[in-house]
Amino acid sequence: SKRTGYCENRMSFLSVREISPKVRSINPTELEPLVKRAAQIKTELTQGVRKSYKDVIDVCWGDPHRGGVKPLTFVRQVLAACMYPQLIHSDKLPVDVRRRAQRLLDVCDGESVGSYTATAGIPYIRSNLARFISRRDGGVPSSPENIFLSSGSQISLTHVLKLLIHNQASLPIGVLTPMSTYSTFKMAVEGLGGAVIPYYLEEERGWELRVEELRRVLREFKDVCNPVALYVINPGNPTGHVQSRTSIEEVIRFAAEERLFLMADEVYQDSIFGEDTEFVSYKKVLSEMGPPLSHQVELASFHSVSKGFMGECGLRGGYVELVNLDPEVKKYIYNIFLTDSSPAVTGQLALDLMVNPPRPGDPSYPVYAQVRPIKIILWKLMPQRNILEVLNNIPGISCQPITGGAFILPRLHLPQGAVRKAEELGMQPDLWYCKLLLEEAGVCVGPGCEYGQKEGTYHIRLRVLTPVDTMEEVLRRLKNFHLNFLKEFS
Amino acid sequence: SKRTGYCENRMSFLSVREISPKVRSINPTELEPLVKRAAQIKTELTQGVRKSYKDVIDVCWGDPHRGGVKPLTFVRQVLAACMYPQLIHSDKLPVDVRRRAQRLLDVCDGESVGSYTATAGIPYIRSNLARFISRRDGGVPSSPENIFLSSGSQISLTHVLKLLIHNQASLPIGVLTPMSTYSTFKMAVEGLGGAVIPYYLEEERGWELRVEELRRVLREFKDVCNPVALYVINPGNPTGHVQSRTSIEEVIRFAAEERLFLMADEVYQDSIFGEDTEFVSYKKVLSEMGPPLSHQVELASFHSVSKGFMGECGLRGGYVELVNLDPEVKKYIYNIFLTDSSPAVTGQLALDLMVNPPRPGDPSYPVYAQVRPIKIILWKLMPQRNILEVLNNIPGISCQPITGGAFILPRLHLPQGAVRKAEELGMQPDLWYCKLLLEEAGVCVGPGCEYGQKEGTYHIRLRVLTPVDTMEEVLRRLKNFHLNFLKEFS
Ligand SMILES: Cc1ncc(COP(=O)(O)O)c(C=O)c1O
Ligand SMILES: Cc1ncc(COP(=O)(O)O)c(C=O)c1O
Repeated sequence: SKRTGYCENRMSFLSVREISPKVRSINPTELEPLVKRAAQIKTELTQGVRKSYKDVIDVCWGDPHRGGVKPLTFVRQVLAACMYPQLIHSDKLPVDVRRRAQRLLDVCDGESVGSYTATAGIPYIRSNLARFISRRDGGVPSSPENIFLSSGSQISLTHVLKLLIHNQASLPIGVLTPMSTYSTFKMAVEGLGGAVIPYYLEEERGWELRVEELRRVLREFKDVCNPVALYVINPGNPTGHVQSRTSIEEVIRFAAEERLFLMADEVYQDSIFGEDTEFVSYKKVLSEMGPPLSHQVELASFHSVSKGFMGECGLRGGYVELVNLDPEVKKYIYNIFLTDSSPAVTGQLALDLMVNPPRPGDPSYPVYAQVRPIKIILWKLMPQRNILEVLNNIPGISCQPITGGAFILPRLHLPQGAVRKAEELGMQPDLWYCKLLLEEAGVCVGPGCEYGQKEGTYHIRLRVLTPVDTMEEVLRRLKNFHLNFLKEFS
Repeated sequence: SKRTGYCENRMSFLSVREISPKVRSINPTELEPLVKRAAQIKTELTQGVRKSYKDVIDVCWGDPHRGGVKPLTFVRQVLAACMYPQLIHSDKLPVDVRRRAQRLLDVCDGESVGSYTATAGIPYIRSNLARFISRRDGGVPSSPENIFLSSGSQISLTHVLKLLIHNQASLPIGVLTPMSTYSTFKMAVEGLGGAVIPYYLEEERGWELRVEELRRVLREFKDVCNPVALYVINPGNPTGHVQSRTSIEEVIRFAAEERLFLMADEVYQDSIFGEDTEFVSYKKVLSEMGPPLSHQVELASFHSVSKGFMGECGLRGGYVELVNLDPEVKKYIYNIFLTDSSPAVTGQLALDLMVNPPRPGDPSYPVYAQVRPIKIILWKLMPQRNILEVLNNIPGISCQPITGGAFILPRLHLPQGAVRKAEELGMQPDLWYCKLLLEEAGVCVGPGCEYGQKEGTYHIRLRVLTPVDTMEEVLRRLKNFHLNFLKEFS
């Protein structure tokens, strides 16, 4: 081919060998081929190819809207009016929507969502976020100066990692990371040349975070890397576990002892399902532990409009709050944000709407009020209790209860024959299982290997923020497929 | 203080000494104090503090909307309808707007701008971008597979740098960077641990890029770093220069000889003012140079909705097209984009609107048609000819003509007394000048030191994409201030 012909005597310098080794160390997602194949099957179905199912159901990703959950009217009305300000003067929109849109435009330069904003976000919105945090945490003070907005919380996570990870010492910088985990975080650590130190959540105890496990991995990894940070996800993705106050206190004490920078990923803080479950922020617990810890432990806490009751993943609005950072260090964090120009404006405005919802008396309140705190009502989700019951009744599947988050992570007890077969094919057994589930039942779920799991265990991840009839169909198809699978490989 | 008290026996590990040296090497913007002071003065004015001017005029930044330019109705109507789809069914919006909004929602998962998209952007939009590029370049083929979208082109620029810059060798990786330049790019190189190799554009020839200068700096820097990439900005920011086809050919030949990866920042491609000036893309020229070069030189070309005739900086929509990259290398670029989750959806949709404007016959066409190719008509901008005339008539200011871009970069011939005074104050002379201009005349412009300039020369940068009456006022105030300044320091 032409390409090969020229490759032989090509002069361009950039072969794989010459690109940054950090980039080469990123382990890309396992989901890629699965997602591509799902798209293909969808096309085949529209072209009339016969399958045993009429559509592909995708419960692999975390975005609620993709799964059929509807966006909040209030949020979308305000943002539409900000986008096209003539709407502010039309009587088609409720008066509180129009008032809010005008207020938000007033804080955009040139009264346009088309202007850049300050690097760390619009000051008015930073202040509102600080007030929200303080309210949420029962009065613990929060300062706008410590809050940095970004186009999605993923960028904030990466920016904080940039501060911590460098490649100057002989040992790589290590970041303690839960398994199972949010996989983009893992890739971000790898992409910066850092080392992921996996700590395993205890499945048998509902995916609890145990400090003994943190201690174990720290001992194990101390000679191969230099651990500087501890990443926790609460509520957990993909485990659905919500940490208790006691558990958070233990983790904070551990971070203090080991001088670790705490990264608390709290993007699912509004997604609490458990009946007696409450979300308590790391910042609140830290503050209530009192001095000296409350003044010492460095904490970065992340939140986002992508999750919670808004589910606005595509708008890209997130923030990080920094606690106890040396002011000198904070200057450098600021410089990191500077290299990115300003965060997406609609995402910033959505953050404001997230923390300042309509109030009793506002025209938009009645509809809005149904959503908080539990979206099950408006979103018509299947209670997690019922999901759990179905899953645990399938032979060869066991599943821990979830109390928050967006996902459930059932374990597959695969027959030896199936594991051997997958190994022959050179595939992770659960990835192979997911491929077959997609081919044969038209259901797209995530394989446990994507999120990290104990060796010899296999899982699948399903998004539970899915309308009830869709979820019922998913479970029906999964059960049928699984029973056939067991028959074939036992 | 409390802080100091605890700092003395603090246990937290993160002092400035321990953060990544790459982060410490970022030279943050000089504009910060200026911009802060401008905001303060605005507040003072609203509080009734007496000044010799009634308002602060900001022509420092690049965003047209901030300066009073209005967004395009068509663009905002479509995006508002995508945000709040009920508008699609209202008869308030033109039918082509509603049709387009529906088409765009059809390609969003779950028909919502609130869903994540594919990592490199919505496939439908990538295809439309490829068609646009091919049309623009007179038929040169373009493949959607080579196009990656991001939340603003700044992120694409940084992602490409991540591929190239590593810290494995004893010499840092170098990137040839024009002076004067777009300063965020410089910070991005520094933040990755790369070395900026400054090459100077030739002011006396209208800020021309001269290959002899590229050769000179390459010789000069070869022993202190390992140059891998050449960054060009065409049309230039902040210089307003548009490269000729011959100049582009020379640069390409140089890149080929020296095995440099070409980064062509073409975000101002739609902002052409010069009467006989035409924008020709690097890709088109490269293709027309024929083999072997056309198959060999690696090129990344950047574009954005922030500039051109939309000026939608806040939406964050940009893309990079990669040319002649080894397919293996492209896989890794993809992994870099993976670490960021998906680009802002409204920014992606805006890219689609940018490359597929209304056509003759569409209800939205008549208004829209006034904008292209020269926005002067709709935006009521002052012709650059007139700006130039005013500037060149101020003693001690000289200014090269501009043919494109968003800025003009007049040179200040400062009296020795002024330079000495600034040095006494420990400030760059042009930054000091900008501070005084702000204090005394209420005009905020950028100092040349922010963008890089030849030693001993001083400049200021003004945004020319500014409505005509504002621009006239800016020039009036600048002239008065400057004459007084000369009187005081000559
Ligand atoms: C645990 C966790 N953190 C952060 C993110 C990033 O969310 P975003 O960048 O959309 O704010 C996600 C997204 O799935 C997540 O699951
Ligand atoms: C030359 C140049 N390139 C790139 C950018 C980045 O633009 P954005 O990230 O908004 O697309 C800018 C912004 O000012 C610029 O001037």
